[in-house]
Amino acid sequence: MLEELKKRVYEANILLPKYGLVTFTWGNVSEIDKESGIFAIKPSGVDYDKMTPEDMVLVDLEGHKVEGKLNPSSDMLTHLEIYRKMKDVGGIVHTHSTWATSWAQAGRNIPCYGTTHADYIYGEVPCVRNLTQEEIDAGYEENTGVLITDYFKDKDYMAVPCVLCKNHGPFTWGKDGHEAVHNAVVLEECAKMALLTELCNSHAEPTPQRVCDKHYFRKHGANAYYGQGNS
Amino acid sequence: MLEELKKRVYEANILLPKYGLVTFTWGNVSEIDKESGIFAIKPSGVDYDKMTPEDMVLVDLEGHKVEGKLNPSSDMLTHLEIYRKMKDVGGIVHTHSTWATSWAQAGRNIPCYGTTHADYIYGEVPCVRNLTQEEIDAGYEENTGVLITDYFKDKDYMAVPCVLCKNHGPFTWGKDGHEAVHNAVVLEECAKMALLTELCNSHAEPTPQRVCDKHYFRKHGANAYYGQGNS
Amino acid sequence: MLEELKKRVYEANILLPKYGLVTFTWGNVSEIDKESGIFAIKPSGVDYDKMTPEDMVLVDLEGHKVEGKLNPSSDMLTHLEIYRKMKDVGGIVHTHSTWATSWAQAGRNIPCYGTTHADYIYGEVPCVRNLTQEEIDAGYEENTGVLITDYFKDKDYMAVPCVLCKNHGPFTWGKDGHEAVHNAVVLEECAKMALLTELCNSHAEPTPQRVCDKHYFRKHGANAYYGQGNS
Amino acid sequence: MLEELKKRVYEANILLPKYGLVTFTWGNVSEIDKESGIFAIKPSGVDYDKMTPEDMVLVDLEGHKVEGKLNPSSDMLTHLEIYRKMKDVGGIVHTHSTWATSWAQAGRNIPCYGTTHADYIYGEVPCVRNLTQEEIDAGYEENTGVLITDYFKDKDYMAVPCVLCKNHGPFTWGKDGHEAVHNAVVLEECAKMALLTELCNSHAEPTPQRVCDKHYFRKHGANAYYGQGNS
Repeated sequence: MLEELKKRVYEANILLPKYGLVTFTWGNVSEIDKESGIFAIKPSGVDYDKMTPEDMVLVDLEGHKVEGKLNPSSDMLTHLEIYRKMKDVGGIVHTHSTWATSWAQAGRNIPCYGTTHADYIYGEVPCVRNLTQEEIDAGYEENTGVLITDYFKDKDYMAVPCVLCKNHGPFTWGKDGHEAVHNAVVLEECAKMALLTELCNSHAEPTPQRVCDKHYFRKHGANAYYGQGNS
Repeated sequence: MLEELKKRVYEANILLPKYGLVTFTWGNVSEIDKESGIFAIKPSGVDYDKMTPEDMVLVDLEGHKVEGKLNPSSDMLTHLEIYRKMKDVGGIVHTHSTWATSWAQAGRNIPCYGTTHADYIYGEVPCVRNLTQEEIDAGYEENTGVLITDYFKDKDYMAVPCVLCKNHGPFTWGKDGHEAVHNAVVLEECAKMALLTELCNSHAEPTPQRVCDKHYFRKHGANAYYGQGNS
Repeated sequence: MLEELKKRVYEANILLPKYGLVTFTWGNVSEIDKESGIFAIKPSGVDYDKMTPEDMVLVDLEGHKVEGKLNPSSDMLTHLEIYRKMKDVGGIVHTHSTWATSWAQAGRNIPCYGTTHADYIYGEVPCVRNLTQEEIDAGYEENTGVLITDYFKDKDYMAVPCVLCKNHGPFTWGKDGHEAVHNAVVLEECAKMALLTELCNSHAEPTPQRVCDKHYFRKHGANAYYGQGNS
Repeated sequence: MLEELKKRVYEANILLPKYGLVTFTWGNVSEIDKESGIFAIKPSGVDYDKMTPEDMVLVDLEGHKVEGKLNPSSDMLTHLEIYRKMKDVGGIVHTHSTWATSWAQAGRNIPCYGTTHADYIYGEVPCVRNLTQEEIDAGYEENTGVLITDYFKDKDYMAVPCVLCKNHGPFTWGKDGHEAVHNAVVLEECAKMALLTELCNSHAEPTPQRVCDKHYFRKHGANAYYGQGNS
């Protein structure tokens, strides 16, 4: 079932090594079919170059496997929590990409140092805290999701389509799996340039709000004029 | 019309991903036909690997689209302003290349730390300021160009064929689109080495003027002797 | 003899340049056949792209060459010492990979800054000291091994499958040659991200022990649930 | 004439882009035929992918062009000075490779931080000063060579087969062009790891002399035992 969805999710997963975002199997993409409330996700620990569309695992919003011979990604419950609470999210990516993960390990939000960042992410990339022992014992992967959904409650999470989990790595999202991968590439490049910016000037200042507004809203919303009017 | 120009501009745009200067569609090249006063420029938000020469957009020096089905690059008005005021410029490149953009985000001029820089750029690479709210409201892209042309008024802009826009990224130029791309590659490499130089020695000193003069003038001007005498 | 072993060791050696872990001939892999007590190792100073499976050198646990026209890697005696004292080790890798070697040159243990590290390495990556003049004179390569085996005596060396030798570079190991190569890739990526983490935050703190425990034991041991249950 | 020499020099030049040591035409290799006292060198400003063996320029030890339609590299007089004074040198490379050039721009000697360096370079990589105005006027390229040959007078230059020219970049050499290229790769990697080492530990200490001795002399001289005994 949902063969088109599985194919798209397979293709989105294959983009992760293509864009240099993963080593070995350190990353996964999922995408949800809104109508049925079922999402497809990469199987756990399977090499990208041995994977087929049929290997994608289907899971419903109760977290039950609906179809698939393999175990879903060990991060499945984090994806699930995001789909349950952040209803506009259509696709999710998790990686250990080098530069974004380094910021996560440093435990810092990524400031908006330029228009590359402002074109896609409206404000800082937040870094959420570590889980407590109680939270880990009660459900590590699910509570990782809860930290994220709690942070974004009442925030415009489609305007900040990414988060860092402290000492772990980034999650990104979008309207579908491909947009989530796109945002993972953007985040990695912004993370890299943000660190180089600080090495170049230890007193570097974030982009003025007026410039962030200009760049974000020339690409998003009713008055956008970037591109060919079909994004 | 101007099929040769569109082909050249297409080919120059294709060089940007080849040289690793762009992610996704984050860059554009234009070139002007001096006789007709019309320039060709990349369409906005179109992938390099889906683009054709026919997709190049033709614009005149009043900023009117002369030919093309697609919208021109959102940076078109910046290119236009440069062509209007800096008459010797024949081609322009804008990218968000990693290292040059990091210097732009740091808000610093790039010092001339060595002969790689001095061979192409006579002096520091300047970093111009952010626009004010008024300037943004009056025309963000056009006034970005005005900052650049104001800075270079009465300066030898062909001897410093590049600039950084604060919290944004670099623009480079040359006698045509290909030379502008060439200078974008040079700038990126000089930006990278300049930062590594400072990490290696926080008291690094710029190249002595006598060495800058020697290197720049052995490649440029009446007494140049680098190459085969036909550059 | 041991044709399958030589083929596997050849293939594992070929992975070193594929993963970008070596320049020229700066790395070697060995794997031991537990039954016969004989290990196969790369010949010394031979290019990876000129090597064949037949070029692998067979050595017994007394350090005698059992088969092979070529000299074994100059690091052979280090491998031998590890096989003799750390009985669960089935394969060993030595490289001068850029980032792990830089930590070795810095003379520092690599802290566990995140779950990428914690997934594979339970605790810091230790950096062992330089040899004394007496130890060098008595046998440089063998005593390099002794430093390593002394450090890991009474420690769970399969849970920390890597070490840095000061001013030299890393050794990694695993149940066979391929797993040792896998761990060499992991170590290099963790070394890179650890340095970037410190550049991002000079007061970065190691991952809390509870998170290290969670990640290591969801992948290793009786209660592991990462992957497809066959690792 | 000297067709074999031109072919070898051509092939050695082609290795520079292959190893990532050059951008555009920023590097050159030469090799000398000791019998005739003639060396072949890359032509000035010619792209590596358009070059043929026949384009190599032959020059004698008086600096006269003996054969060739093109101008020799603008650094030819530096090569000449080295061949004249450092008689054991058979091949020379000049590049603007990123990391070695950054050390040159920082104006610092590269300390020997590890055995990768010690395997090839016996001691620090020296950085020679800038030329004075008088020296530039009298002959920039030739006097660049004089700085190098003066520094190495009465030193074992084959044991330290490289130098940095301040605010410029590296020269390396060897018994022939290919060995000089090999040393250029080694230098670049050592330069990179040396900077990363200092970023990892601002108080990093050079490799103890006893370890440098051990590594250098297990690869070079009468008692060498690295490799297959034919280097």
